[in-house]
Amino acid sequence: MRVSQYMLSTLREVPAEAEVVSHQLLVRAGMIRKLSAGVYTYLPLGWKVMQKITNIVREEMNRAGGQEILMPIIQPAELWQESGRWNVYGDELFRLKDRHQRDFCLGPTHEEIITDLVRREVSSYKQLPLLLYQIQSKFRDERRPRFGLMRSREFMMKDLYSFDRDEHGLDVSYKKMFDAYTNVFKRCGLTFRPVEADSGAIGGSSTHEFMVLANSGEAEIVFCSACDYAANVERAESLVEKKAAEEPAKERELLHTPGMHTIEQISEFAKVPKERTIKTLFYHTDKGLVCAVVRGDRDVNEIKLLNKVGGTELRLATDEEVVKVAGTRPGFVSPIGITGVEIIVDEEVVHISNAIAGANQEDYHFINVNYGRDFQATQVTDIRTVKAGDRCPRCGAVLSSARGIEVGQVFKLGTKYSAKLGATYVDEDGQEKLIVMGCYGIGIGRTMAASVEQNHDEKGIIWPVAIAPFEVIIVPATMKDEKQAEIAEHLYQELIKAGIDVIIDDRNERAGVKFADADLIGYPYRITVGKKTVSENTVDLKTRANGEEKTLPLPEVVEYVARLVKENR
Amino acid sequence: MRVSQYMLSTLREVPAEAEVVSHQLLVRAGMIRKLSAGVYTYLPLGWKVMQKITNIVREEMNRAGGQEILMPIIQPAELWQESGRWNVYGDELFRLKDRHQRDFCLGPTHEEIITDLVRREVSSYKQLPLLLYQIQSKFRDERRPRFGLMRSREFMMKDLYSFDRDEHGLDVSYKKMFDAYTNVFKRCGLTFRPVEADSGAIGGSSTHEFMVLANSGEAEIVFCSACDYAANVERAESLVEKKAAEEPAKERELLHTPGMHTIEQISEFAKVPKERTIKTLFYHTDKGLVCAVVRGDRDVNEIKLLNKVGGTELRLATDEEVVKVAGTRPGFVSPIGITGVEIIVDEEVVHISNAIAGANQEDYHFINVNYGRDFQATQVTDIRTVKAGDRCPRCGAVLSSARGIEVGQVFKLGTKYSAKLGATYVDEDGQEKLIVMGCYGIGIGRTMAASVEQNHDEKGIIWPVAIAPFEVIIVPATMKDEKQAEIAEHLYQELIKAGIDVIIDDRNERAGVKFADADLIGYPYRITVGKKTVSENTVDLKTRANGEEKTLPLPEVVEYVARLVKENR
Repeated sequence: MRVSQYMLSTLREVPAEAEVVSHQLLVRAGMIRKLSAGVYTYLPLGWKVMQKITNIVREEMNRAGGQEILMPIIQPAELWQESGRWNVYGDELFRLKDRHQRDFCLGPTHEEIITDLVRREVSSYKQLPLLLYQIQSKFRDERRPRFGLMRSREFMMKDLYSFDRDEHGLDVSYKKMFDAYTNVFKRCGLTFRPVEADSGAIGGSSTHEFMVLANSGEAEIVFCSACDYAANVERAESLVEKKAAEEPAKERELLHTPGMHTIEQISEFAKVPKERTIKTLFYHTDKGLVCAVVRGDRDVNEIKLLNKVGGTELRLATDEEVVKVAGTRPGFVSPIGITGVEIIVDEEVVHISNAIAGANQEDYHFINVNYGRDFQATQVTDIRTVKAGDRCPRCGAVLSSARGIEVGQVFKLGTKYSAKLGATYVDEDGQEKLIVMGCYGIGIGRTMAASVEQNHDEKGIIWPVAIAPFEVIIVPATMKDEKQAEIAEHLYQELIKAGIDVIIDDRNERAGVKFADADLIGYPYRITVGKKTVSENTVDLKTRANGEEKTLPLPEVVEYVARLVKENR
Repeated sequence: MRVSQYMLSTLREVPAEAEVVSHQLLVRAGMIRKLSAGVYTYLPLGWKVMQKITNIVREEMNRAGGQEILMPIIQPAELWQESGRWNVYGDELFRLKDRHQRDFCLGPTHEEIITDLVRREVSSYKQLPLLLYQIQSKFRDERRPRFGLMRSREFMMKDLYSFDRDEHGLDVSYKKMFDAYTNVFKRCGLTFRPVEADSGAIGGSSTHEFMVLANSGEAEIVFCSACDYAANVERAESLVEKKAAEEPAKERELLHTPGMHTIEQISEFAKVPKERTIKTLFYHTDKGLVCAVVRGDRDVNEIKLLNKVGGTELRLATDEEVVKVAGTRPGFVSPIGITGVEIIVDEEVVHISNAIAGANQEDYHFINVNYGRDFQATQVTDIRTVKAGDRCPRCGAVLSSARGIEVGQVFKLGTKYSAKLGATYVDEDGQEKLIVMGCYGIGIGRTMAASVEQNHDEKGIIWPVAIAPFEVIIVPATMKDEKQAEIAEHLYQELIKAGIDVIIDDRNERAGVKFADADLIGYPYRITVGKKTVSENTVDLKTRANGEEKTLPLPEVVEYVARLVKENR
C-alpha cells in the first residue's frame, strides 16, 4: 500500500472528549471516527487492525472445533419474552417496531436466538457437542457511552455458544474455549491474565474474564506470583488471617469515644491496630436489612455480600434505617445485641480476640469484644475485599494486584436458557434431557483498544506485530531524490514478495512529518531510505517497541526484516 | 471437516412457504433458517458460501484500489434530514429511538454517513480519488419480504462509494468498478450480463445492473447477440420501426365500432395489423394528467414515461378522469382534439400512415389518422416497451430477451449528496469544488441465491467450485468396513495437504442417505470409497454439474482431483 493513495487521517491535536489514551490515540492515528455517542466508523487503518484480530479469533475458534454461523441483528421480542429477559434487560436494549408494529430488539447478545435455533435443529445426543459462533456487530444502549471503543453502543463481538449433553461435556467445552482464548490473546501479542470472576446475576457456575493488564484498566485483579491463581477483585479470595487471635478473652467494657466514628479515629485513640477493630455496616437489600461485619482494616465486598444474601439489589442503609435497628447512627454500631436482621460476619472476624466494636450507643464503643461470646452470626463466611499483600487461597504466597481491561469472558450457563426455551435432546438411554450450555465472548474493538492502553508511549501507539495495521513502513526521507525513491520502491516490492504487510510513505512531505505519523500510527518496524542509503548503501531500521535503531547494509535488509517480522508475528 | 462433527441440517421436505427454488434448496440443504419474516440465520454451510463470495468481492475491491472500512449500522436521523431522505424514505426505513429519545435508523445504505465522513476528512484534491467500501448487514423493512434471501429485511451487502474531483474522474472510478464487478461474478462461476438500467428517482447520469441469468429472475432484460448491448427492459431502447409508414395520407373518416374498446377487436374488425393502430392511455401524474400514445402493438413503458414527464409518481387515470378530458371513456380515446394536457407520443407513432385511433366518442374510431395532420405531440420521444425481436439500437441486429436476477449495481451519483451535505475539496487551482460521487453495491446473499436459481437440478444445488461450501466430499460407502474408513481417511488427509477444501461423510448412515445429502448440498466433486476400492484399488469420482462418473486408480485420485479443483476454482 502507498500512503499517497491511502486514507491517512492523522491528527496533531488530542480530541477534546477523549478521556483515555486508547481513545485519544485511535482517533489521532486515523483509526476510528465518532458518528454519534458510542458509535464509531472504523477507517482503513483501524479496520485493518480489527480484521487481523478477527482472523486470529476465527482461526482459534475453528481450531477448537467451533463452527461459524451468522445470526440476525434484529431479534423478535417473542424469544426474549420466552426467556424472560424482554422486561428485565432495561434501557440498554435498543428496541424498535417494524412496519407492522411488531416488537424487535437489536441483539446485545444471542442466547435466545441460538437456543431457539438449536432446539429446532438438535434432537439427538449424536449431534452434540456443538460449538457455534459468530463475529458481528452488537448493540447496547449504554447510559454513558465513553472511552472510545471501551464502552460503545455498537461494537464488534465474537460470541460462541457451546451445547453439551451434561456438565462433564460443558467442562470439556469450557476448557477448549479457555485454551483457545489463551491462544488468541497470546497471538495478539498482549500481556493478559485469565481471572476468576463473579458470575453475578446471569447465574451459572463458573466464569473467567480475560484481562489485558494496563494501568488504566477499569478492573482490579488480584493474582499470585507463586501459583496461577488470579481473580477479579470482585470475586478474589484470600487465606483467613488469624494473626490477631492470640490473647485469652477479657471482660467486655464500655469506652467513651466522643465523636469518633471512623476506624482510624478509634484505632488511634485506643492504640490498637485496625486489625483488632470490628467494622459493622448495615445494607438495605431486596431480602431485607443486613448487618455486615468485617475486620476494621477490611472493606466489605458488596458483590460477595449480595451473593451470600441471595439478593439482586443492595445499597448502604440510610442513617434513619440504621438508627431504627441499632438505636444509634453508623460509627458507633456493632452486631452486639442486634436482632431481627441477618448478621453476616466475615470469617476473619471470628479470630480477633478482645476487639473494639461499636456499642450501639452514641459516642461509645466496647473493648474486649469476642465473637461467640458477645455476638453471633447468621452466616460466617467470606465477605471481605482482598488486596495486595493478602495470602493466596491456593498456595499461601503473597498476592499482588494489578489493573486490567476485560477483553473476553467464558461462562458456564448450564441449563438456564435451555430450560426456559425447552432445548432438549434424546440421550443414548432414550431419555429426553436439557442441553447444557456455555457462552464465550471476545470484544474485538475492546481488544484493539486494550492493546493501545497497554502498548503506547508519548509519540503514539506501539502495535504488536500480529495485529499491526502494517508490519513495516518504508520511509524515503525525500521523494524528490529520485535515487531514494527508486531504492524505497524496490525495497517495497521485495518485501511484498517476501510476504510482508508493508506500506511505503511516498508522500511529498518532510521526513519529520512522515516519522511523526509512523510513530503515531505505531508500525512495528520503520525502514528509512535517506542520503546515507544512496551514498553508503545502508538503511536505518527502527523498532517501534524499544526505539532501537540499527544500520543495515542495503542488500541484507529485506531478508533481515522479513525474518524479524515472521519471528514476531 | 467431518460430517459427524458438523452441523448438518438437511431436510427431505420442501418448506411450505418457500416459493422459489433457491429459497427451497437453501433451506433444505441446511444453509439458512428463518428467524422472522425476511430475517435469516446462516448455518455453517451457508455461511461458508457467503464467506467465499465475500472473499472474492473483497479481493476484487482491493485490487481495484478500494479501501475497506466499517461504518455503523445505527445512523443518526440528523444526517438523513440533511440529505432530505428522512421524510421520503418511507416505511422501508427501520427507525428507532435511543434511551434519550434521539432518532436513529438502521442503515439501508450509507450515502449520508460516508458523505459526512468524507466532508470531514477530505479537504484537498491530493486526497482524491478515494474508493471506500464495507461489507455489512443492511436493513430494509420490505412490505412483503419473500423468496428467502432474494427479498429480505436484513441482508449482507458490499457497498463501495467513489469520490472524485470531476466527472472524468467519476468515469474512471465507474469503469474500475464495472470491471471489478465483471471479475467478481466471473470468479463466482455465474452466467451474468451487465445491463443498462434506469437511474430512476436517485438521479445520476448512468447506471448498470449486473444480472445473473435465470428463468426465475424477477427482471426482464433485453440484449443483442451481435454486439454487447444489454439493458433492463425498464430502460431498453430499440431502433425506430418505420415499416408501417408507406402510404400517402388519406382522408380521415369516422368508423362505427360498437363495443370495440381493445386494440385486438379493432384490428380484427378493421382488418388492419395492430402496428397500424394507435394506443392512447391517460395517466395521472404529480405533474398533471398526461396523454401517452404508442403503436397498437406496443406497451407503454411507464418508467420511461415518468422520466419524460419529469415526475415522481404515476398511475393510470380513472375512467372519470379520462371522460373529463377526452369526452369518452378509455377504448375510444385518442390525442385528436385533446387540449390542456401534455401529449407524449412515441417516436414510432409518427411513422404510421393512415392509422386507426379512437374518435373520443363512444363506439367510434377514426381511420386514416396521420401524425402531424390530425394530432400533435408536446414531446415525440421513446416511451415504448422494447421486446424480443425488436432491433438493437446500436447495431440493428435482432434483440433477444431473458430473465435475470440483479446481484449488483454500479451508479453515478454525481454531486447529489456532496451538494446536500457540502462535501467539497480545494482543487489545484485553489477553487472549492463539490466532490463527484458514485456508489456500487453487491448483494452477497442475493448472489448466493441467484447462483442456486441458475445452477440446480431436481436433486439439489449445483455449486460453482469457487463458492461451494466444500469443493470435494469423500463418501465412504460404509464406515463399518474398516478398510473403507481407513482409505477414506487417508484420502481426506491427503486432499487437505493438497490445499483442497474437503469434507468427509464419516457418519454411520447408508450410502444412499449420504449420496442424497451430497447431491442436495451440491458439492462439486464426490469421491466414493466403496467395496471396489478395497477389492480393485479404484474410487469413483462424480462431477455434480454434469453427473459424470469416472473410475480412477486409487493412487492417482488425489493429484487428479486437486488439479481438477484448482482448474475450476
